[in-house]
Amino acid sequence: MKYNEKTLEVETIYEGRMINLNVHKVMLPNNNTAYREIVVHPGAVAILPIDKDGRILFVKQFRKAVEEELLEIPAGKIEPGEDPEKCALRELEEETGFLASQLLFMNKIYTSPGFSNEVIYIYLAKDLITGKRNLDDDEFIDLYKLDLAEALNLIKLGKIKDAKTITAILLLQNF
Amino acid sequence: MKYNEKTLEVETIYEGRMINLNVHKVMLPNNNTAYREIVVHPGAVAILPIDKDGRILFVKQFRKAVEEELLEIPAGKIEPGEDPEKCALRELEEETGFLASQLLFMNKIYTSPGFSNEVIYIYLAKDLITGKRNLDDDEFIDLYKLDLAEALNLIKLGKIKDAKTITAILLLQNF
Repeated sequence: MKYNEKTLEVETIYEGRMINLNVHKVMLPNNNTAYREIVVHPGAVAILPIDKDGRILFVKQFRKAVEEELLEIPAGKIEPGEDPEKCALRELEEETGFLASQLLFMNKIYTSPGFSNEVIYIYLAKDLITGKRNLDDDEFIDLYKLDLAEALNLIKLGKIKDAKTITAILLLQNF
Repeated sequence: MKYNEKTLEVETIYEGRMINLNVHKVMLPNNNTAYREIVVHPGAVAILPIDKDGRILFVKQFRKAVEEELLEIPAGKIEPGEDPEKCALRELEEETGFLASQLLFMNKIYTSPGFSNEVIYIYLAKDLITGKRNLDDDEFIDLYKLDLAEALNLIKLGKIKDAKTITAILLLQNF
């Protein structure tokens, strides 16, 4: 690694339900100091589920941070110590009511490395089997099915706006 | 909009250099209450610059949040009141030393809508002209050039990990 920023001090600003916020005083490569605001996130999974007719399952939910309902692929936070694959199967079933016989790793992305360590493991889920839907108390989610061409068109039109969802759909073209 | 979460109270946790953190107490669609942790971000631009030989310009920099050097396309925060296009041309020149005669809007993405309002406007920059590189005091950035096939391979290998960068490269295939 050519450049690095060594932490000199950490100030804990907030320890919350989903995220923590720390401010690191760091030493820059030129020996000056700077401050880095870092949102600590537990990591997440996102699952691109494809049914036997080749259609992709989406969830639509209100996202308070952006004050909009967004069309996304199913996703969720990784629990402490949880394996990302198990988390993917759990979240897929909880949000859509489907289990997957085949789960294929697609990619791992940093969503906002300028201010957060959030990482999302993206999986392709195939051979879906009916399981049991089980939403969290604060989750209100509708299901939609689109084929790949429709999904690509919604990206082009700016109707699918979520980075993990766009990444997963575009990756599917090359998968 | 079918579902909504009305804010009942906002607690300001932190007002920082790049981000603010608020916690909203909200009313859920079933009239129960919940808390939403929201990282407020000013928004950003990312620019996919292509030179006359069809190669893409990348920047490599240390990202404290993930404790890694990342290969990304040039990007930067939008200043208050700044037009995203102007911001894109400014950030491109500051980080790479190039101006673009052609700037084409590619997409607008929410990077982490589960906890942040960060939006990134992605542009394609063509017909590059030599300008003046001008890094911020705390920026240490190296430049790299890759053709599209190399970039796609680095995504596949997990060597390009940044969501906005992956999105921009994959969008280029369909652009």
